Amino acid sequence: MRFFSDNAAPVHPAVLDAIVAANAVDTAYDGDALSRSLDGAFSDLFETPVTAMWVATGTAANALALAALVPPHGGVLCHRDAHIQNDEGGAPEFYTHGAKLMLVDGAGAKLHPAGVAAVADAIANDVHRVQPHALSITNATEYGLAYTPDEVAALGALARARGWRFHMDGARFANAVANVGCSPADVTWRAGVEVLSFGFVKNGGMSAEALIFFDRALAADTLRRRKRAGHLLSKGRYAAAQILALLQEDRWLDNGRAANAGAAALAGAAGSRALHPVQANEIFLAMTPDEAASLRAQGFDFYDWAAGEVRMVVSWNQPEAEIAALAAAIAAL
Amino acid sequence: MRFFSDNAAPVHPAVLDAIVAANAVDTAYDGDALSRSLDGAFSDLFETPVTAMWVATGTAANALALAALVPPHGGVLCHRDAHIQNDEGGAPEFYTHGAKLMLVDGAGAKLHPAGVAAVADAIANDVHRVQPHALSITNATEYGLAYTPDEVAALGALARARGWRFHMDGARFANAVANVGCSPADVTWRAGVEVLSFGFVKNGGMSAEALIFFDRALAADTLRRRKRAGHLLSKGRYAAAQILALLQEDRWLDNGRAANAGAAALAGAAGSRALHPVQANEIFLAMTPDEAASLRAQGFDFYDWAAGEVRMVVSWNQPEAEIAALAAAIAAL
Amino acid sequence: MRFFSDNAAPVHPAVLDAIVAANAVDTAYDGDALSRSLDGAFSDLFETPVTAMWVATGTAANALALAALVPPHGGVLCHRDAHIQNDEGGAPEFYTHGAKLMLVDGAGAKLHPAGVAAVADAIANDVHRVQPHALSITNATEYGLAYTPDEVAALGALARARGWRFHMDGARFANAVANVGCSPADVTWRAGVEVLSFGFVKNGGMSAEALIFFDRALAADTLRRRKRAGHLLSKGRYAAAQILALLQEDRWLDNGRAANAGAAALAGAAGSRALHPVQANEIFLAMTPDEAASLRAQGFDFYDWAAGEVRMVVSWNQPEAEIAALAAAIAAL
Amino acid sequence: MRFFSDNAAPVHPAVLDAIVAANAVDTAYDGDALSRSLDGAFSDLFETPVTAMWVATGTAANALALAALVPPHGGVLCHRDAHIQNDEGGAPEFYTHGAKLMLVDGAGAKLHPAGVAAVADAIANDVHRVQPHALSITNATEYGLAYTPDEVAALGALARARGWRFHMDGARFANAVANVGCSPADVTWRAGVEVLSFGFVKNGGMSAEALIFFDRALAADTLRRRKRAGHLLSKGRYAAAQILALLQEDRWLDNGRAANAGAAALAGAAGSRALHPVQANEIFLAMTPDEAASLRAQGFDFYDWAAGEVRMVVSWNQPEAEIAALAAAIAAL
Repeated sequence: MRFFSDNAAPVHPAVLDAIVAANAVDTAYDGDALSRSLDGAFSDLFETPVTAMWVATGTAANALALAALVPPHGGVLCHRDAHIQNDEGGAPEFYTHGAKLMLVDGAGAKLHPAGVAAVADAIANDVHRVQPHALSITNATEYGLAYTPDEVAALGALARARGWRFHMDGARFANAVANVGCSPADVTWRAGVEVLSFGFVKNGGMSAEALIFFDRALAADTLRRRKRAGHLLSKGRYAAAQILALLQEDRWLDNGRAANAGAAALAGAAGSRALHPVQANEIFLAMTPDEAASLRAQGFDFYDWAAGEVRMVVSWNQPEAEIAALAAAIAAL
Repeated sequence: MRFFSDNAAPVHPAVLDAIVAANAVDTAYDGDALSRSLDGAFSDLFETPVTAMWVATGTAANALALAALVPPHGGVLCHRDAHIQNDEGGAPEFYTHGAKLMLVDGAGAKLHPAGVAAVADAIANDVHRVQPHALSITNATEYGLAYTPDEVAALGALARARGWRFHMDGARFANAVANVGCSPADVTWRAGVEVLSFGFVKNGGMSAEALIFFDRALAADTLRRRKRAGHLLSKGRYAAAQILALLQEDRWLDNGRAANAGAAALAGAAGSRALHPVQANEIFLAMTPDEAASLRAQGFDFYDWAAGEVRMVVSWNQPEAEIAALAAAIAAL
Repeated sequence: MRFFSDNAAPVHPAVLDAIVAANAVDTAYDGDALSRSLDGAFSDLFETPVTAMWVATGTAANALALAALVPPHGGVLCHRDAHIQNDEGGAPEFYTHGAKLMLVDGAGAKLHPAGVAAVADAIANDVHRVQPHALSITNATEYGLAYTPDEVAALGALARARGWRFHMDGARFANAVANVGCSPADVTWRAGVEVLSFGFVKNGGMSAEALIFFDRALAADTLRRRKRAGHLLSKGRYAAAQILALLQEDRWLDNGRAANAGAAALAGAAGSRALHPVQANEIFLAMTPDEAASLRAQGFDFYDWAAGEVRMVVSWNQPEAEIAALAAAIAAL
Repeated sequence: MRFFSDNAAPVHPAVLDAIVAANAVDTAYDGDALSRSLDGAFSDLFETPVTAMWVATGTAANALALAALVPPHGGVLCHRDAHIQNDEGGAPEFYTHGAKLMLVDGAGAKLHPAGVAAVADAIANDVHRVQPHALSITNATEYGLAYTPDEVAALGALARARGWRFHMDGARFANAVANVGCSPADVTWRAGVEVLSFGFVKNGGMSAEALIFFDRALAADTLRRRKRAGHLLSKGRYAAAQILALLQEDRWLDNGRAANAGAAALAGAAGSRALHPVQANEIFLAMTPDEAASLRAQGFDFYDWAAGEVRMVVSWNQPEAEIAALAAAIAAL
């Protein structure tokens, strides 16, 4: 029973169906009808005109977003535990040509204006110091916390006041929105976000994420950067089809809700073991090596996050029986 | 009737079947069984131990290959019309951090040792001049010519003598091998090629190319570069499945043969209009604008390559009736 | 007797005097009075407000200029024999993060609008092709030709019409201006040049070139790039002093005139051997190896440019006797 | 009276004399006799064969060193307050093409093996995490602490055990060696250092630092990187002359001793205000804004380091009267 990563989950049947349905002669690259429909689909979802483009991975989405927002000699304010800092093999530095990540603390990997401002205020504005040019947050955070629209807006206001651009890494955007129950617009552009990495792979997709530009002026150069990075697929229609299939019938949101519910059930069983509020599909638990071994002996697979800590992730299609079994096993520790 | 690009073609049914078959919980990234089987599959095909990895595009494959072979301050000898020079939006410069492409002439976009040596000999070996570090050829070439093993070996010998690394862009490797009838080994590593971009997307694949390291020592750093470039897919098993499906039952070679046969049929009809020998699935024809318009009026879609020149590409599954119709229309011009 | 390179020449006495005079406690970096006076001095010379900054080498000046004008995914149109292409070890690619140099032909390394336009017109405007973003010319050219203001203006008009930025590499700007007899303004910003690399090292300086921004909006980021490239000297006043010493009393122009006169004298002796018009301080002569050996046996040092071609460069302080002796020796061949 | 920065100090008279003495025709770039003598001069000083090259700034020296030691996808372990992290405008990221600086804590900006190992141990060895490839320390540190040979050797042993390269930023190497009284060899290569940035500008030089390769195999590529960065001076003999003048008669060491003595005198007066041990030419003092204003009113210039902290730097030629006056003023606060 896999609770190791939502990347281990299979692909939603509707996604496979859409791929099969797309299997006909069509224009190459992103000139096909499906790819061209993405702007409209996301503009509807976000209630404002946006430019959307598919990319194959969340790492590419984030790195392209940052490259659009920060010059090579600039910096990106982000959480010390941000995925862009710790888990992308240096992709932000590669795509931005060496911009510096500027690390901010915050419980549960969530940023707050005061913490961000304190880091920025310590940077003298001269040519010897790299200057911050953008703020990047992850929603849901790396520890499974969801931002409210007000929290994002407070950060957005800070960014605007300081002249920084504002990016949201939404690898688990569906889980965050499902948790808060807000509109996608309220927690993004209405709160100041200018570029969003909208994750679909952890949400039932196969190999397609969406990069959403609320500041549409940034998109043209990004199309060139995407090609230059080898991310312009020759047959883009199969990527577009995946995203559209998950947008249809709000599948992305249903999948997010289902995974969140599973994590909530585990959290209920875990009680005070939970190290962070559970607001998405991940739970982080205090656990001794013996306890972890006991769970593994019962067939549960999960991640050793740090000494005495484990991470469990519930996937969009995790069977209820598996969740119930794990909850019971945790409760019985 | 599309003769515009082999990227417009659909995906082979076996590829779709393989994707569907792969749709189960498995390890993320490239830790799954399918991805791990690629080394073996390609080692069998090439009759020598190789390291193989999937990437989403040919541009990424080429750029990663060059980054493995050339330092940022080095140069890559290639044809003036090479895809890496003209059609990848600067990806080689991005991935190599600014290496310089050094352009060589040659009929039909094919390189010969004398032409390569002449360009290299004109470069003084001092710190003011960027020095060549690698040679890159495209097989089949951008004008649809296939290299024989002897031709590649002559270039490989030159590269070895000069201390250059040797890369082959095989976006249409299947077509080239099908044309020459040689073993994949003879036209690659036995002829000195150290890294091969093995194309599958134009050959019936969806979104997976293979990067083959005959010099396996180069692969470890490339795995890091692939991640850093955002090309480590979260669910790599669906990419591996595509490649394996085309390797099985020699589908890749059958697809190459089929497309080549179509191009040969068109060439037979075109006669002296053909501007290059037809040794793969592309034909380049001299054609007036009026003639081109006439063909388009009959429902044929193709590419205006240059003034007075058109390119027609036959796909792996191009219906025989379409080919016959186009051949007749060309003959009737 | 050195006619090998104007970099072999010593430093003008006034430059040394200025360095000695600057040897007092002062503000570090570029905060000192001398550095802060550069904007004014060059604004006077160019009859328009400019931003000027010192850098240690012409390569750094050119590379910083291009980085200000071209994004990493862009291209620079320049002559096939341009210094930025052939003699800077890849510095333009390093500073621009991989922009592509797009090579244009032209006699004597001089560009003309038709040649530039032809190269640009062959580049389809899609994401597969790197797009030109700037035009760069060298004045005097690598073969010692000087541009007239009208010639530059014609290129400037083309650049403006196409939306390209316009850079002039003036490593031998003094020689060019001295030859044409125009105002520095007429051959630069009035003709559309936006950034000028103004050379002083070949003109009697020691280790300081000037980077002149006619488009002053580009300067702020360049100050950061200069620091990031390790070119912000800790004690900048000694660099500023060099430049100011050469600007004073029109020494830069006198030095240019003197060197040009020497080259003209050699050209007179060389007659039809001269391969290019002599409009600066360099001459290129057809010469057999035996003839070259004969000159060397007489104590003359010069550069073997290509098979059957030699380059001779006259320095700002080349003794008249040396010039006369070489002229006589050439005439006697 | 300037205690703001040792970059504000003038140039040693012997340096100016050496520049004047070098003012003759000679080979360009680094082909002159002075430049070619650097290897020998530093090999004598370090009692082992080294390759030495001049660069114009410490930032360039450090960035070139790191580029020689770390691939673009690698990381550099350094102190959180290291100059390479905070004061070089992103030069390390530029020259390394985006390597990541990995920040370690330690009192007085000094690193210790346990702290370094703890940071490294927290980095999982997979492709998602950037891996450390080098360790870089500053000697004397940014807070004026000097490493003993044993302290460096302990870090060198850790680096060797982990497979990291080892760099020392010696912007104030003279002050560090003068303080410890060790041989230059003992605190560098005998302790495992492979590349040293040997500072001369803060030590009486004008515009020349030395980059010393104890691992001589790294030098060849660095010569190309130096050119590519625009740091190959056209008239390098004037840079070499500066360095040689300071090496002669142990001027570099005398200058370091003199500056250290001044700082020690200030420290004696400052007593418990001193925030760090004073082992070089810098002192950091606790000081209220009113106290600082009082000193400034008496004509003393210094740096506001942080809230309630000031930095004072003694230059190689700081007049004893100025030092005595400042010491008295501090004591009288």
